[in-house]
Amino acid sequence: MVKSSMRLGDIAAELGAQLRGEPDIEITGLATLQAATPGQIAFLANPSYARHLADTRASAVIISPSVADKFTGAAVLMDNPYFGYATLSHRFDPAPVAAAGIHPSAVVSASARIPDSASIGPQAVIEDDVVIGEGVVVGAGSVIGARCQLGDYSLLRPRVTFAHDVVIGRRCHILSGAVLGSDGFGFANEKGAWHRIAQIGRVILGDDVEVGANTTIDRGALDDTVIGNGVKLDNLVQIAHNVNIGDHCAMAGMVGIAGSTRIGSHCVFGGASVVSGHLTLTDQVHLTGMTMVTGDITEPGVYSSGTGADTNRQWRKNAVRFRQLDSLARRIKELEKKLEG
Amino acid sequence: MVKSSMRLGDIAAELGAQLRGEPDIEITGLATLQAATPGQIAFLANPSYARHLADTRASAVIISPSVADKFTGAAVLMDNPYFGYATLSHRFDPAPVAAAGIHPSAVVSASARIPDSASIGPQAVIEDDVVIGEGVVVGAGSVIGARCQLGDYSLLRPRVTFAHDVVIGRRCHILSGAVLGSDGFGFANEKGAWHRIAQIGRVILGDDVEVGANTTIDRGALDDTVIGNGVKLDNLVQIAHNVNIGDHCAMAGMVGIAGSTRIGSHCVFGGASVVSGHLTLTDQVHLTGMTMVTGDITEPGVYSSGTGADTNRQWRKNAVRFRQLDSLARRIKELEKKLEG
Amino acid sequence: MVKSSMRLGDIAAELGAQLRGEPDIEITGLATLQAATPGQIAFLANPSYARHLADTRASAVIISPSVADKFTGAAVLMDNPYFGYATLSHRFDPAPVAAAGIHPSAVVSASARIPDSASIGPQAVIEDDVVIGEGVVVGAGSVIGARCQLGDYSLLRPRVTFAHDVVIGRRCHILSGAVLGSDGFGFANEKGAWHRIAQIGRVILGDDVEVGANTTIDRGALDDTVIGNGVKLDNLVQIAHNVNIGDHCAMAGMVGIAGSTRIGSHCVFGGASVVSGHLTLTDQVHLTGMTMVTGDITEPGVYSSGTGADTNRQWRKNAVRFRQLDSLARRIKELEKKLEG
Repeated sequence: MVKSSMRLGDIAAELGAQLRGEPDIEITGLATLQAATPGQIAFLANPSYARHLADTRASAVIISPSVADKFTGAAVLMDNPYFGYATLSHRFDPAPVAAAGIHPSAVVSASARIPDSASIGPQAVIEDDVVIGEGVVVGAGSVIGARCQLGDYSLLRPRVTFAHDVVIGRRCHILSGAVLGSDGFGFANEKGAWHRIAQIGRVILGDDVEVGANTTIDRGALDDTVIGNGVKLDNLVQIAHNVNIGDHCAMAGMVGIAGSTRIGSHCVFGGASVVSGHLTLTDQVHLTGMTMVTGDITEPGVYSSGTGADTNRQWRKNAVRFRQLDSLARRIKELEKKLEG
Repeated sequence: MVKSSMRLGDIAAELGAQLRGEPDIEITGLATLQAATPGQIAFLANPSYARHLADTRASAVIISPSVADKFTGAAVLMDNPYFGYATLSHRFDPAPVAAAGIHPSAVVSASARIPDSASIGPQAVIEDDVVIGEGVVVGAGSVIGARCQLGDYSLLRPRVTFAHDVVIGRRCHILSGAVLGSDGFGFANEKGAWHRIAQIGRVILGDDVEVGANTTIDRGALDDTVIGNGVKLDNLVQIAHNVNIGDHCAMAGMVGIAGSTRIGSHCVFGGASVVSGHLTLTDQVHLTGMTMVTGDITEPGVYSSGTGADTNRQWRKNAVRFRQLDSLARRIKELEKKLEG
Repeated sequence: MVKSSMRLGDIAAELGAQLRGEPDIEITGLATLQAATPGQIAFLANPSYARHLADTRASAVIISPSVADKFTGAAVLMDNPYFGYATLSHRFDPAPVAAAGIHPSAVVSASARIPDSASIGPQAVIEDDVVIGEGVVVGAGSVIGARCQLGDYSLLRPRVTFAHDVVIGRRCHILSGAVLGSDGFGFANEKGAWHRIAQIGRVILGDDVEVGANTTIDRGALDDTVIGNGVKLDNLVQIAHNVNIGDHCAMAGMVGIAGSTRIGSHCVFGGASVVSGHLTLTDQVHLTGMTMVTGDITEPGVYSSGTGADTNRQWRKNAVRFRQLDSLARRIKELEKKLEG
């Protein structure tokens, strides 16, 4: 997959983009406008970086036709240069490509179905009745529980854990340390002690789902936990049992979604946002970082909570007043009455 | 342990509950009132779901005697139907049961004591002088450090890590990716640089403790980190060194407890709550999600902090005023003086 | 490394400290002033514990010369007793020391360079062209990706994951479950769907860096993610792609740093603090716990945000007023106008 060198003409063709300049220019790498050296291709995605066009040493730039006149060098013209960069990035990815086959140190159940095109890494464990798709990679030290199903071309990095009965779609990307299908946090209290409830639902991921490093997605209590197509979860995210996430959502690091909450599609959650359980959020909800959601959200839009950092000296004065807010509001009301009277 | 089918009479007997209806009804699964199909048993734990009783297709329902007259079908009557469901759930749990014995790919020290009834999974590592109880399961790829002691019938899911000298009680349940006994975060600063302090205390868990996926519990600096009986910790929880948690506490995902803090018994902490170090919280403290605790709590009760999500447009206006709160309060005082004067 | 017993005179010599008392006193352990038993050495780092000096049963105490007259027993006198304790703690650390050599169950590439002094634990995986320094320990079940470089005397606890091309300095300490070099969270949106961007930068750690249990440090998108010398990261910390952290910072559990943010040196971040992406924080910034930073910080000092826990009853009253803050402020302004008018 990785190429050390591509012709600029081939790059434009692969991106379905218009070429301005010499197609035989040899491109050997990808970099930012500022860091690029001759032989590399750069891109302009954010117009505020346009000032770097004048100084870049890149041999070519992926750029929108709308600003192409600001750059005189070789250019690959397309409406979404960031998408062009994303596509091209895989051509210059130095990540080793796993060889097909089952490593002799892996422990694989005789009942697992593994095609010749799949790669099972060293020290991995594949349990009974697992079904693995074409071209799937299971990284070193991963454990795949009984009856899991992994869709074609899914890529599991080293040390991933799937408990039993986890089903993932095609082209999913599961990063190291992720745990899918672990028991949901369900207990019944009887006379002050907590009694564990067996979690007998599954985890179901659509196609093209990304699960970040050390992220956890719990299996359902009775029904399933369901993650839609194209959902992207960053590192250290917690998805509790019976959560349902719609297609094409993106959640940054440390987001937490409590049990049985339903999230619409195309939502974007900033880092460390937390959504309480048993809620429903509609499509296209955008949460800024550290937002605390404790009620349903029925309208698309941007939502926030919390307060920004201040000097500790100022913050102390203000935070103590927060505890007096209701009484301050009543005093304002009182003043207004007096002035009206 | 898993049965595909049970007689309704046997279910009532096992739950110590009263049966209303035909004891020979065959029950083949467990589901919610809404999702149940004929042959399954459902339950009514939350009275607000009572409206689903009329339409359920379940063959029987676990229900409190106090609302039994709202349902005409076969019923298992007990005061705490949710506890009945919890108990019964294990009968229909499809999780594979680990076979006793040491998998040939495991690496086990000759000095470890492992009874025949225990199960040591593939690729696991058991270090010197570990003592493992009857019926214990150590999941695939787990690493158990020197001198650890695991009480009878404790269940460690795949890829759990215990550093050396971790002691856990009976029937503990440790989920994948959990790390117990890792070094506490202790450093001495000398001339601007941090110098690591060896963490020579242990981690001690009582009986019936649950530790969630990718949760971390650090060993003590000098004394031990201690988790009481029946404590339930969800995923991605952080318990720092020398913390002491009383019996039967439950902490939801992403809770953090800083070093040397002591938590009473029967506390319930909502997700992403954070408690500062060197504090003491009494029994029966309930924190709502994302609460920040920076001082001792001496009275049982429910505590909260933070602000809920608002539209970003409204939030921006209010959050900027938070920085003026102290001055606003002073201006109210001034107005009051003027009006009195 | 571990000694069960040391002469007090040797302790003072090793710490470069002044001895007051009998050098032949045998010291067999280390404890707090309160917990120490005869034969153990204790320390007084925090002056507020000075009251325990009178009752301690410790055979000797590490203490500052400035308060030495408050204690009549054997003493080791040095200006920074906490540093003395830190240094001495390693002498009484019961952690097993890994034997040099490659465990037969490890899977090691023929192209990896591993000196005789290094220890590769059971079930570990070392991929192609890895370069390992003198005295390095790779814990059981760890996976080290292609072309990683580990500096001399670095210690990796069990079940650590390094993706390819991670470079760490000397004497680093990486705790269990940590994931270094996992893919950064980078996607281009095209017509509503997210397209993954290959992350082709590296992770670079300086010397003496600590990475906590289950902490994640992502590789850079194009440039590298860089962690300076002496940085200490606690458990469950998230460091996103292209972050740059200056020397000797310390970050407590659950801190999150979003992408491309640059942190100065000697910063200290309390637990669960979150810093947004693309920001710059200067040197010596101290964040109290749960602080949310959404803008640059240009001045050293202590910063905070959020509100402390209150009873739920009081909090509800005040939190609802937060949503009215801007209108309350306008009403105060109105009142002031009327009174002036």
